Amino acid sequence: MVHVIDIDDPSDPRVDDFRDLNSSDRRPDLPGGKGLVIAEGVFVVQRMLDSRFSPTALLGVGRRLEELAEDLRDVDVPFYRIDADTMAKVVGFHLNRGVLAAAHRPEPLEPGEILDKATTVAVLEGVNDHENIGSMFRNAAGLGVDGILFGKGCADPLYRRAVRVSMGHVLRVPFAHLDHWPQDLDILRSRGFQLISLTPNPSAIPLAEAMTGEKVALLLGAEGPGLTEATMQATDVRARIPMAPGTDSLNVATAAAMAFYERVRLPR
Amino acid sequence: MVHVIDIDDPSDPRVDDFRDLNSSDRRPDLPGGKGLVIAEGVFVVQRMLDSRFSPTALLGVGRRLEELAEDLRDVDVPFYRIDADTMAKVVGFHLNRGVLAAAHRPEPLEPGEILDKATTVAVLEGVNDHENIGSMFRNAAGLGVDGILFGKGCADPLYRRAVRVSMGHVLRVPFAHLDHWPQDLDILRSRGFQLISLTPNPSAIPLAEAMTGEKVALLLGAEGPGLTEATMQATDVRARIPMAPGTDSLNVATAAAMAFYERVRLPR
Repeated sequence: MVHVIDIDDPSDPRVDDFRDLNSSDRRPDLPGGKGLVIAEGVFVVQRMLDSRFSPTALLGVGRRLEELAEDLRDVDVPFYRIDADTMAKVVGFHLNRGVLAAAHRPEPLEPGEILDKATTVAVLEGVNDHENIGSMFRNAAGLGVDGILFGKGCADPLYRRAVRVSMGHVLRVPFAHLDHWPQDLDILRSRGFQLISLTPNPSAIPLAEAMTGEKVALLLGAEGPGLTEATMQATDVRARIPMAPGTDSLNVATAAAMAFYERVRLPR
Repeated sequence: MVHVIDIDDPSDPRVDDFRDLNSSDRRPDLPGGKGLVIAEGVFVVQRMLDSRFSPTALLGVGRRLEELAEDLRDVDVPFYRIDADTMAKVVGFHLNRGVLAAAHRPEPLEPGEILDKATTVAVLEGVNDHENIGSMFRNAAGLGVDGILFGKGCADPLYRRAVRVSMGHVLRVPFAHLDHWPQDLDILRSRGFQLISLTPNPSAIPLAEAMTGEKVALLLGAEGPGLTEATMQATDVRARIPMAPGTDSLNVATAAAMAFYERVRLPR
């Protein structure tokens, strides 16, 4: 069971990991940031407890401690119990969800670890919006995608907002970085993945026709610029979601969701 | 061409339609609200100019006026030119996009007007989140959905945030309200639409198998509660998006996007 420690003073250094979240987690990937992974709310904290991210401490109101009692039975870290007003002073804003957990970042996974067990993965290039990344993990979890690989220029999936928007699924859907881009796409090709570039280009093949592989890697670029030409050239096929004439591109997380859906639309 | 009127005083009553947007547009559907439709940014203002929503006035910085010059050639309303700081005082916050247009609400469309020309529509029940509604219009436009019908308990699609998230497509994709719910689904049935309830219930039929009609109405409920049982009973079939075990429901706009995609995935 967690050790419950009551906190009355918002300046108590024991809760420093949860302090001023709005500013301190702006760039958790940089040396200046704390590099902690923060789960917010009962639901996402439960997901964290059930993941490879082990919390080092929790901060929350008494009611949330009660709601999590069962989940925290075998967890041997402090739970800093606090009232909502004092918590708002620590965190820097009022947090409706009433509970936070902080975890260190575990060792990153290797692409091969993910790919050896995968049949469907997404590969992102230049996707630098945390909400889109969060949504993508949520959709990946919902539609049974086995992992997400990050190419060049992507935002940090462990940023607080990405964790929240994903409903905690960034903690569960495995992800890894491809260090040499786009050369490391060979790691996928050598494992038999069909590499499919998604593009709004009308000359591309409809996704439903292009997706022929047993194992599939769906490459997605940011809304607007899309995938770079060099990356598309390193893939097997360029595919499009058939769109109405005269409309703009879809949101990248939505486009990804449709591509994930194409993989599972009929029971196999 | 618009009449350019320079505004130096943020309390000038001529720009009252653009005042304190964060509070004044909270409930534009209620008598207390102004009931105006606000377009933000060059792109969405262009969409408004190209729609059945005719702006009565614009407010913006000089640079945006220049960018819109071509679009405003035949538009006979005031353009209140203002600097960014004064504009922030009027609007109540700093608006990056630098230009706003305000339009009165036109007469609502009748469901029949939309349905007579439609082969794919979405029908919403209890969808009360403006972002989801905005996303749904954007996806509907992108995937060629012909209209959106609102059943009971939905949020106002003309709310400022919905307009923005839709990238202006709420101004272009036609929508109407079904006043008697769910009885008015008969308006669709009598026109030959197959009525498909989307539900995460695992006992429902995969959407790809369920969707057999020439004309299709996709019914969607809010994330969480979903469609009511009474509504599902008033439809022809219950369909599901095949999901991974142990995951939660998808975001309603994402689920809608997949259903829209199922209609267009192969060129007809």
